[in-house]
Amino acid sequence: MPESRHSPFARLPGVLNPVNHLKVVGRLVRRTPKKPGSAPGTLVHTGSRKVERVRISFLDYDAEHLHEEEVDSIQECFPLKETPTVSWINVDGLHDVELIRNLGEHFGFHPLVLEDLVSVGQRPKLEEHEDYLYIVLHMLSFDGDTKRVESEQLSLLVGSSYVFSFQERVGDVFDPVRERIRSAAGRIRGQGPDYLAYALMDAVVDGYYAVLERVGDEIEDLDLEVMQEPEQAKLRRIHDLKREMLVIRRAVWPLRDVMSQLLRSEHPWIAPDTKVFFRDVYDHAVQSLDTVETLRDLASGLTDLYLSAVGQRQNEVMKVLTIMASIFIPLTFLAGIYGMNFQHMPELALSWAYPALLTLMAAVAGTMVWYFRRKGWW
Amino acid sequence: MPESRHSPFARLPGVLNPVNHLKVVGRLVRRTPKKPGSAPGTLVHTGSRKVERVRISFLDYDAEHLHEEEVDSIQECFPLKETPTVSWINVDGLHDVELIRNLGEHFGFHPLVLEDLVSVGQRPKLEEHEDYLYIVLHMLSFDGDTKRVESEQLSLLVGSSYVFSFQERVGDVFDPVRERIRSAAGRIRGQGPDYLAYALMDAVVDGYYAVLERVGDEIEDLDLEVMQEPEQAKLRRIHDLKREMLVIRRAVWPLRDVMSQLLRSEHPWIAPDTKVFFRDVYDHAVQSLDTVETLRDLASGLTDLYLSAVGQRQNEVMKVLTIMASIFIPLTFLAGIYGMNFQHMPELALSWAYPALLTLMAAVAGTMVWYFRRKGWW
Amino acid sequence: MPESRHSPFARLPGVLNPVNHLKVVGRLVRRTPKKPGSAPGTLVHTGSRKVERVRISFLDYDAEHLHEEEVDSIQECFPLKETPTVSWINVDGLHDVELIRNLGEHFGFHPLVLEDLVSVGQRPKLEEHEDYLYIVLHMLSFDGDTKRVESEQLSLLVGSSYVFSFQERVGDVFDPVRERIRSAAGRIRGQGPDYLAYALMDAVVDGYYAVLERVGDEIEDLDLEVMQEPEQAKLRRIHDLKREMLVIRRAVWPLRDVMSQLLRSEHPWIAPDTKVFFRDVYDHAVQSLDTVETLRDLASGLTDLYLSAVGQRQNEVMKVLTIMASIFIPLTFLAGIYGMNFQHMPELALSWAYPALLTLMAAVAGTMVWYFRRKGWW
Amino acid sequence: MPESRHSPFARLPGVLNPVNHLKVVGRLVRRTPKKPGSAPGTLVHTGSRKVERVRISFLDYDAEHLHEEEVDSIQECFPLKETPTVSWINVDGLHDVELIRNLGEHFGFHPLVLEDLVSVGQRPKLEEHEDYLYIVLHMLSFDGDTKRVESEQLSLLVGSSYVFSFQERVGDVFDPVRERIRSAAGRIRGQGPDYLAYALMDAVVDGYYAVLERVGDEIEDLDLEVMQEPEQAKLRRIHDLKREMLVIRRAVWPLRDVMSQLLRSEHPWIAPDTKVFFRDVYDHAVQSLDTVETLRDLASGLTDLYLSAVGQRQNEVMKVLTIMASIFIPLTFLAGIYGMNFQHMPELALSWAYPALLTLMAAVAGTMVWYFRRKGWW
Amino acid sequence: MPESRHSPFARLPGVLNPVNHLKVVGRLVRRTPKKPGSAPGTLVHTGSRKVERVRISFLDYDAEHLHEEEVDSIQECFPLKETPTVSWINVDGLHDVELIRNLGEHFGFHPLVLEDLVSVGQRPKLEEHEDYLYIVLHMLSFDGDTKRVESEQLSLLVGSSYVFSFQERVGDVFDPVRERIRSAAGRIRGQGPDYLAYALMDAVVDGYYAVLERVGDEIEDLDLEVMQEPEQAKLRRIHDLKREMLVIRRAVWPLRDVMSQLLRSEHPWIAPDTKVFFRDVYDHAVQSLDTVETLRDLASGLTDLYLSAVGQRQNEVMKVLTIMASIFIPLTFLAGIYGMNFQHMPELALSWAYPALLTLMAAVAGTMVWYFRRKGWW
Repeated sequence: MPESRHSPFARLPGVLNPVNHLKVVGRLVRRTPKKPGSAPGTLVHTGSRKVERVRISFLDYDAEHLHEEEVDSIQECFPLKETPTVSWINVDGLHDVELIRNLGEHFGFHPLVLEDLVSVGQRPKLEEHEDYLYIVLHMLSFDGDTKRVESEQLSLLVGSSYVFSFQERVGDVFDPVRERIRSAAGRIRGQGPDYLAYALMDAVVDGYYAVLERVGDEIEDLDLEVMQEPEQAKLRRIHDLKREMLVIRRAVWPLRDVMSQLLRSEHPWIAPDTKVFFRDVYDHAVQSLDTVETLRDLASGLTDLYLSAVGQRQNEVMKVLTIMASIFIPLTFLAGIYGMNFQHMPELALSWAYPALLTLMAAVAGTMVWYFRRKGWW
Repeated sequence: MPESRHSPFARLPGVLNPVNHLKVVGRLVRRTPKKPGSAPGTLVHTGSRKVERVRISFLDYDAEHLHEEEVDSIQECFPLKETPTVSWINVDGLHDVELIRNLGEHFGFHPLVLEDLVSVGQRPKLEEHEDYLYIVLHMLSFDGDTKRVESEQLSLLVGSSYVFSFQERVGDVFDPVRERIRSAAGRIRGQGPDYLAYALMDAVVDGYYAVLERVGDEIEDLDLEVMQEPEQAKLRRIHDLKREMLVIRRAVWPLRDVMSQLLRSEHPWIAPDTKVFFRDVYDHAVQSLDTVETLRDLASGLTDLYLSAVGQRQNEVMKVLTIMASIFIPLTFLAGIYGMNFQHMPELALSWAYPALLTLMAAVAGTMVWYFRRKGWW
Repeated sequence: MPESRHSPFARLPGVLNPVNHLKVVGRLVRRTPKKPGSAPGTLVHTGSRKVERVRISFLDYDAEHLHEEEVDSIQECFPLKETPTVSWINVDGLHDVELIRNLGEHFGFHPLVLEDLVSVGQRPKLEEHEDYLYIVLHMLSFDGDTKRVESEQLSLLVGSSYVFSFQERVGDVFDPVRERIRSAAGRIRGQGPDYLAYALMDAVVDGYYAVLERVGDEIEDLDLEVMQEPEQAKLRRIHDLKREMLVIRRAVWPLRDVMSQLLRSEHPWIAPDTKVFFRDVYDHAVQSLDTVETLRDLASGLTDLYLSAVGQRQNEVMKVLTIMASIFIPLTFLAGIYGMNFQHMPELALSWAYPALLTLMAAVAGTMVWYFRRKGWW
Repeated sequence: MPESRHSPFARLPGVLNPVNHLKVVGRLVRRTPKKPGSAPGTLVHTGSRKVERVRISFLDYDAEHLHEEEVDSIQECFPLKETPTVSWINVDGLHDVELIRNLGEHFGFHPLVLEDLVSVGQRPKLEEHEDYLYIVLHMLSFDGDTKRVESEQLSLLVGSSYVFSFQERVGDVFDPVRERIRSAAGRIRGQGPDYLAYALMDAVVDGYYAVLERVGDEIEDLDLEVMQEPEQAKLRRIHDLKREMLVIRRAVWPLRDVMSQLLRSEHPWIAPDTKVFFRDVYDHAVQSLDTVETLRDLASGLTDLYLSAVGQRQNEVMKVLTIMASIFIPLTFLAGIYGMNFQHMPELALSWAYPALLTLMAAVAGTMVWYFRRKGWW
Repeated sequence: MPESRHSPFARLPGVLNPVNHLKVVGRLVRRTPKKPGSAPGTLVHTGSRKVERVRISFLDYDAEHLHEEEVDSIQECFPLKETPTVSWINVDGLHDVELIRNLGEHFGFHPLVLEDLVSVGQRPKLEEHEDYLYIVLHMLSFDGDTKRVESEQLSLLVGSSYVFSFQERVGDVFDPVRERIRSAAGRIRGQGPDYLAYALMDAVVDGYYAVLERVGDEIEDLDLEVMQEPEQAKLRRIHDLKREMLVIRRAVWPLRDVMSQLLRSEHPWIAPDTKVFFRDVYDHAVQSLDTVETLRDLASGLTDLYLSAVGQRQNEVMKVLTIMASIFIPLTFLAGIYGMNFQHMPELALSWAYPALLTLMAAVAGTMVWYFRRKGWW
């Protein structure tokens, strides 16, 4: 289970400062991608989080050879388009729209694809173009401190001999995939770009389980605490968790459609043998979705529990008040009677009157106590 | 992000006066379009907001030429029907039904289309006629003062060489499109009316993001405020936001179907190359819908938070009452005892009785305080 | 907008008397149509509201001729079956099952159709028989006094040259259609029975808008009132409105399916040219449905507002109680102290003790007031 | 409307005793049909209610002849398999599994069919086998005393020349059908087993209306009572009604699918002419379902009304308390002031002080009353 | 009905200890199946509960012969692949991934299948491979002590002449199936692996009824108790039951799809004759699902009842307080009046003043009592 402090994008400074607070809802409402009405293909990066410098690296491999390199300019990757080997070019950072435009022109990507690439907040989707597939996914991670789910847009462009992956930031969940390529573990080195795309998507979806587990643990904790101490802060946490689950759901729900579209796809770059692997990712996506819905049900149940626990508390407060008032108000009245200054109150002169009254008072109080006990209020 | 004061129809006077107040629900309930049972094609303008004078302007262009003009009578536009160039005729104001009828007769539009054109409050829809497509959309804008979402009906009639756009009022979200045509930016000048229609629809849907962002900001504000000061005015705001979201939803929900219908359409005026652009608008519509649903979920969560915060407040009030009553009622009783006038109350004569009683009272009060602290009520 | 007092069936006497009260739910639960298990085609009129005498009238027309007549016996209409002109025979009153049976035999209607004709409370539906179409609709009207939605079953039988319309009562929404036939306005005189059926259905659906508008106005009123005076009568009105919306929904929801079935129908009596008109009715039905759902959402929102306003009220009551009790109970205790009769209470003899105590009391009260103000309770 | 005391299975003794109480939920949870994992076709009767003796009777008829008989052993019915006349064999009582097995072997029914036949609690369904159709329905009746909906499984086996009907108990809703066969009323004598099956199903579905009417009446009653006297017993009744509606819904919901399956069926035993009748039953089933859903909506509305009425009551209690306490606690304090024993309280000696204080007290009380009236609490 | 103590996996030690408590939610959130991004086909057992030693046993049979054996190593089962007889190989324990890998290689199972086999928490599913079918199911059992539903993953691999069943633990619901094979009861010995798979699935689904019955009984109990003693522990039980129903639902819901996929399957290993049996399992799955949904509805109803009962309680407490305070506070005030020390209070000297005041007090108290009784609060 990935610990949040190892999560690649959890530790960014400033997540808690006021500017970033807007992100609480902001993650759920896509910011205006560009000036309304501007031409399609206008490249405007909409993410708030930029890396210093765009980092470009590639892995070029077939069953026998492997070439790994970090390059300074995107132009160095252009020759990879022609080679028959599988090339995985990873780009971290989306703010350099000029770079993206160059790339797009060389590889022949549609302007709308490039526009979506840089305007983060896209819904997960699959677009089948003649020469390539365009896949948008969300990578999720759970920040243990802020208890927030962070979402990062991942764009994949899958061609006949290459896979492009675009991320907003350095750091991802793909190290095991890189390791498998380097060590030639499993079948990955002998397969095409479709299999590589599968491996990347599989890694992303595997990451969802880790996030769901963390959310599940939070709910588990709250499940125990909520009836013991129904403080409002607990409800706030339930509320926040529900909101985080909306973030997860928006990543996972459309992914199911993406995968099922991939399963039915007749695109030449998708080998029939790879479909059984896509089917596996599809199953995982459905399962994640199931889990999200179940967790939402559980969180709703917790809200009910909380509210009832609050009601119970109020009931208790009421009972204490009622018991105290019901016992002492009548007694005070009795004392008030004999505090009156009428000249003709014969009882006052009787020597046993005072102890008798005290006894009566005790009896009244006792009756009250008995009554409340019988009611089960005590 | 368009500031509300620049929104084209936010600043109309009288939005807050009683007559217009009806519009709160009125936007959601379409007014009776005509006398029930009257003949189809009866043109009755149903919108309450009219411009002084219908404004007609057109842009006639192809890759090389551009002709822009504001005309006084609709007849001046009739020759545009025959030219092979793309003509975009924009009509602001729908109350002049005679004008619409003339236009309809010349261009051969179906009477039912003309009827829908002028009776605002139509559901977004696409009708494929032999010679033209009829598209109804809603333009949305958020009025920052009244916190209301204003909706304006936009009708598009797309023929082989022309696009008509009908709006209720002057002012729209199409200036960037006009700019692109004038400056021949992007591909728009080389494309047909279907691409122009796309550009207009894209501008409309882009406008939705701005509105959703504003609603999202409102929810964000409320999210912070609602637990701190659960005043009823806050609930009112949540309630009003929910209602505004109904307005948005009614614009966006059917739009998705319109776009998916366009994607599947075999109409000759829709070039296959344009479909990738329609697909983009479709994606944006789906995304807007997603966002609306998410915002509704968030607003529901806020209602729950509000109600629980109110309950918490009540609990606090109750606790203060209970604590005060529980401490002082028994003490008052004790004081009452020794205020009685029995002749035989030996304690009264003891010199240490008074301080002893005061001590007892302090002890009782202290016990109570201890009890309430242990309960966590203090 | 039709004023309720002009609504054709709003003014019947006795709508408020106990017998009719059953209709509140009764409109939503169809009464047993016949003795369970009796033969199909058993004609039993199930409506509670009968006209004195069945009224039969017809309009027989083609582009040139028009013949209008009110007849005494159904047999007088039998010759219309053979004429090539379009005949619209309207029957007001369903209790004379013998008449219906005669008619059915002559025109060859299926016994089950006749049975449905007279047993009101049918779900809107379309049945395509070889020689005719059978359409069931509900006419709705809003009674401004009882705030109830009245529903009347309308059955249409559309043949090759005739349209039968069966209503429970005299009075309908078809006068504008009659007027158009008489005055030969629009295209109606040149069209066949399918167009006439469209015109009737269109008039019915147009009537829905009027009803929805009235319900919308009611909700608008409640929206303003509910937070100002959350009386229980208001909740009752919301509750009743919700129930009325169920009545509307049951009329409109299946109508959408009826219209979409008509649009797809291949029946020879439906000319392809008429379908664009049916499509218009379909659009209106969908729009009405949308509006019903929206109004239901609004009504649910009102319930929430109401409940929260009640809670707010209770809170206020609690605060008054708490403030009064918290201020005066401690003061009373102080007064009680110095009302005790201990012989050794040195303070009693001090001449400044009384004003000092009064000052202390004022200080205590002031502290309390300050505390409550700071809490925002005052 | 069938009175509950005439309902065939309402009057069984012991419905209220503890053993049967389990049936409240038990009707909704099917008891384990057999030992888990035992062989398919293992016949185990799972119903709790047995008749003393299985009663077998048959009606054998064609257009001219009619033979009705009650037989002692199932073997006497075996010859009916071969005759070309329509035979309706009715079996009351399912506990004699040996009889069922014999029957099944002779007529060639699938073991799984026989198993379902005797294990009551099946979901309504249609199974098309080569030689016969197997239909499961639920007969419903409303017990006016326990306010419970009783459900009895009815199995129909429809072959080329016979219909078997299996019930758990003597007594059913088929007497009108029998009467029609005996008196040769309607078309039934001239039709085949499919029409007979229709007649039986129609009788069952007609019975649903009676039950729904009764439930509707209950809701009607509660609708009036719930705001006047919001006792908890009322909520209990609403809760119980909701549960009963679950019983109805489980009978009606799958029936719709059964009927629509029958409508689409190509089975040779279903004459095309009969389909219009099945369509009628389908319509009734859909209508019943509509009504169930509407009644559920109404019942939910009642719960809301009830809860709000309870809240209103609580509010009233609170107001009385607050008014009493707010008026008298300050007055008591004033009285307490002048009950103090300070030696220097100059007011005490003034002859007009007592009446002045009484006046002041009256003024304070009056102010309070005025304040509460203005608040609308009085 | 299987008693929980006979349930095969209910009695494991430690279900209540803290480590296992995590399982409450853990059953609903699948633990990360493997290191995110690791190669597909990486076999990692994810279940927490292991048996000491993997137990392998097989039953090899045809109509005449039967061979049953428990073997030590999986290799002993390899020859069964070639024999024409039906072989059922059951593996209890999934932690020995090496064994699974060997098996998979010999029988040619896909690596992803093997991965799913050992990573428990799979969603029920059906995968059709060329040589075999892979089916995942959940076996459910109800633990009477912890009131928890335990879920165990069952994987079936159905080939042309064999069925593999993989379980996490020794103990299952298949003993009756084994008995039927041994005793050659029913048709099982004469059928192929598809029928065996049916028998196993049928046994699993039959087990669901037992679990649902237990949950139904719990709800039945709560239904009676919840209004009598609305303690918070009851709500906790309802809450827990709802969570358990989520566990059941996640097992049953996808099963319906699995069965319907099997019914439509054209796979050569599924004989058409067996489909009627699969249809039976499908019916049972649908019925179980129905029951789960119904039980969820009932549980929601119980929550409402509970909350209203709590509200009722609070109301009662409030009434007692209000009655006590309203009666005695005015009386105390009256007593306070005559406890004042004004020198000029003429009443004090009157000999009948004291009894008169007592009478007045009784009258006031009586009026109050009468008022409260009329209100129905007493």
